[in-house]
Amino acid sequence: MGPQLLRTESPDQTAPKGRILLVGIGPGSVDHMTHRARAAIAEADVVVGYVTYIKLVADLLEGKEVVRKGMTEELDRAVSALAAARQGKTVALISSGDAGVYGMAGPTYEVLFEAGWTPDDAVQVEIIPGASALNACAALVGAPLTHDFCAISLSDLLTPWPVIARRLNAAAAADFVVALYNPKSGRRTRQIVEAQRLFLAHRRADTPVAIVKSAYRRRQNIDFRTLETLCEADIGMLSTVLIGNSNTVLRHGLMVTPRGYANKYDLQDGGGARAGEKAGRSLSTGLDGWLAGVLADHASGVSAADLAQRHRLPLDYILATLAEPSAPDAEEVTQDTE
Amino acid sequence: MGPQLLRTESPDQTAPKGRILLVGIGPGSVDHMTHRARAAIAEADVVVGYVTYIKLVADLLEGKEVVRKGMTEELDRAVSALAAARQGKTVALISSGDAGVYGMAGPTYEVLFEAGWTPDDAVQVEIIPGASALNACAALVGAPLTHDFCAISLSDLLTPWPVIARRLNAAAAADFVVALYNPKSGRRTRQIVEAQRLFLAHRRADTPVAIVKSAYRRRQNIDFRTLETLCEADIGMLSTVLIGNSNTVLRHGLMVTPRGYANKYDLQDGGGARAGEKAGRSLSTGLDGWLAGVLADHASGVSAADLAQRHRLPLDYILATLAEPSAPDAEEVTQDTE
Repeated sequence: MGPQLLRTESPDQTAPKGRILLVGIGPGSVDHMTHRARAAIAEADVVVGYVTYIKLVADLLEGKEVVRKGMTEELDRAVSALAAARQGKTVALISSGDAGVYGMAGPTYEVLFEAGWTPDDAVQVEIIPGASALNACAALVGAPLTHDFCAISLSDLLTPWPVIARRLNAAAAADFVVALYNPKSGRRTRQIVEAQRLFLAHRRADTPVAIVKSAYRRRQNIDFRTLETLCEADIGMLSTVLIGNSNTVLRHGLMVTPRGYANKYDLQDGGGARAGEKAGRSLSTGLDGWLAGVLADHASGVSAADLAQRHRLPLDYILATLAEPSAPDAEEVTQDTE
Repeated sequence: MGPQLLRTESPDQTAPKGRILLVGIGPGSVDHMTHRARAAIAEADVVVGYVTYIKLVADLLEGKEVVRKGMTEELDRAVSALAAARQGKTVALISSGDAGVYGMAGPTYEVLFEAGWTPDDAVQVEIIPGASALNACAALVGAPLTHDFCAISLSDLLTPWPVIARRLNAAAAADFVVALYNPKSGRRTRQIVEAQRLFLAHRRADTPVAIVKSAYRRRQNIDFRTLETLCEADIGMLSTVLIGNSNTVLRHGLMVTPRGYANKYDLQDGGGARAGEKAGRSLSTGLDGWLAGVLADHASGVSAADLAQRHRLPLDYILATLAEPSAPDAEEVTQDTE
């Protein structure tokens, strides 16, 4: 592999106009591919991808040059794509899910930049987004991603473990729903155990967890567990692990994270806003209400350090907040549609 | 609104078999809609959605009953869908992006559960995933989501501000790429300023930021900024804000987060693995290597507290790690494809 061999010092106006199409094919069923993804593969002279993903689009490949690569050969795939595009060909680089999420978009731009490519180059690049594994898996298990979430890859092939562990710890502490990509392989078996350990320090043992294998593919399998029994599940390279936040429930075989309507509306009794809350407005504990409360508490003698501890926020942030003028009266702001 | 009025105590075998299809239409251009999303709308007798999203699928609505709702009427939309499905109709509930990501999947299940619905009910539910705003915006700006990322909504209409602030702080500290949903509205203007403040405590002022408005729609606009100048940008209800991690670069008008190949391979000099690293294997600073290092440091007298501080990880985690038997020799594990 040698991306530097392809380096060009300036755009060559006579170069043939090739294209690299970075295609996210979605979960893998043709039904869940976008029109543009399908059209991009149809337009391509050459299709490059990991052998498993190439199989998923087998019925779209007739008459095309197909380059099948191994799992860890992302840079090779990008170099092959650039070489073919330099010859004026249209190349579809296939990623499962979304090309931008742990997909080929990143490594391809890294190789292109290294090769001296710029957007003015004869080779044009287009990224075609798709539903990533987290979107597909969520759709199959219920509605786990209805609130703030993180995607974290447990693969340490390119990322030092402390970086991964700090992210796991931060996500667990701040109550994000989490999707774990690349949770386990034949060789990497302890990462998921460490992830579980970091989460159990912050979340209840019975926090709902879903392990989804081969979403929307032939061997699809969904296994509901709890954080405590997560590691007993069959987890492999085709699995995504979804860990709920502190409010996520498993009910009737569906994993659902409440959006927060119960914070504002009385769902049991007609759906009206609770006392002190207004439909279509920030919560009474939203930013303005919270700021007013913090200022009042401080005025009545609560120290900034105590406020930081009470709200589990950095002291510097509390100090900066206290130093700001108080929030404008929300009623005076022009109404908008939200 | 009264979901409880629809409650049924047990599945009624004679009830008409209606369906609720929770459709994620992707960013909004028909090209980026999946085949299944399009088919679901075609199958529907009734289409329910926020008025702006209904407009995006206007050409698919001929002959259908269309129910247009306001922005904050998510529960009403779900109640309307359930009422129509109870009459045996097929109802498509439209979300932009992915139905599961801040979309209608969550509120719909909340309303269904409240109404006594179970998966055995005559009304069947299907969620059709799509590319969310973060996938679409990422595809337009380069490859910002190539490494671990978070999605955080700045709307405090249903979420207390300290919850949002803690997540912003955790994401910033643990070096996640972050996508901010609902960053600002006519009424909510200070949330984005607070988010910037929390990020600047952890990230460089020149961290690349992209503000993407109406991705893949008629008024699409992309504005590249830095963390320092973020708040000078035109940000509204149709904007998504992408904040890079500490390695993200803006180069030739493209925002790219390196995947980490440079940690392992010498991209400048032929692409071979760096000294001490092996292609297709965990990094030397991956879990096994890191564990070995921590154990060795501890054996040579470094305290657990010092190790926790050095690696910015919880002391309890370091103590648990030190208490585990050492990692198995990776060479003895059966080889797999990763």
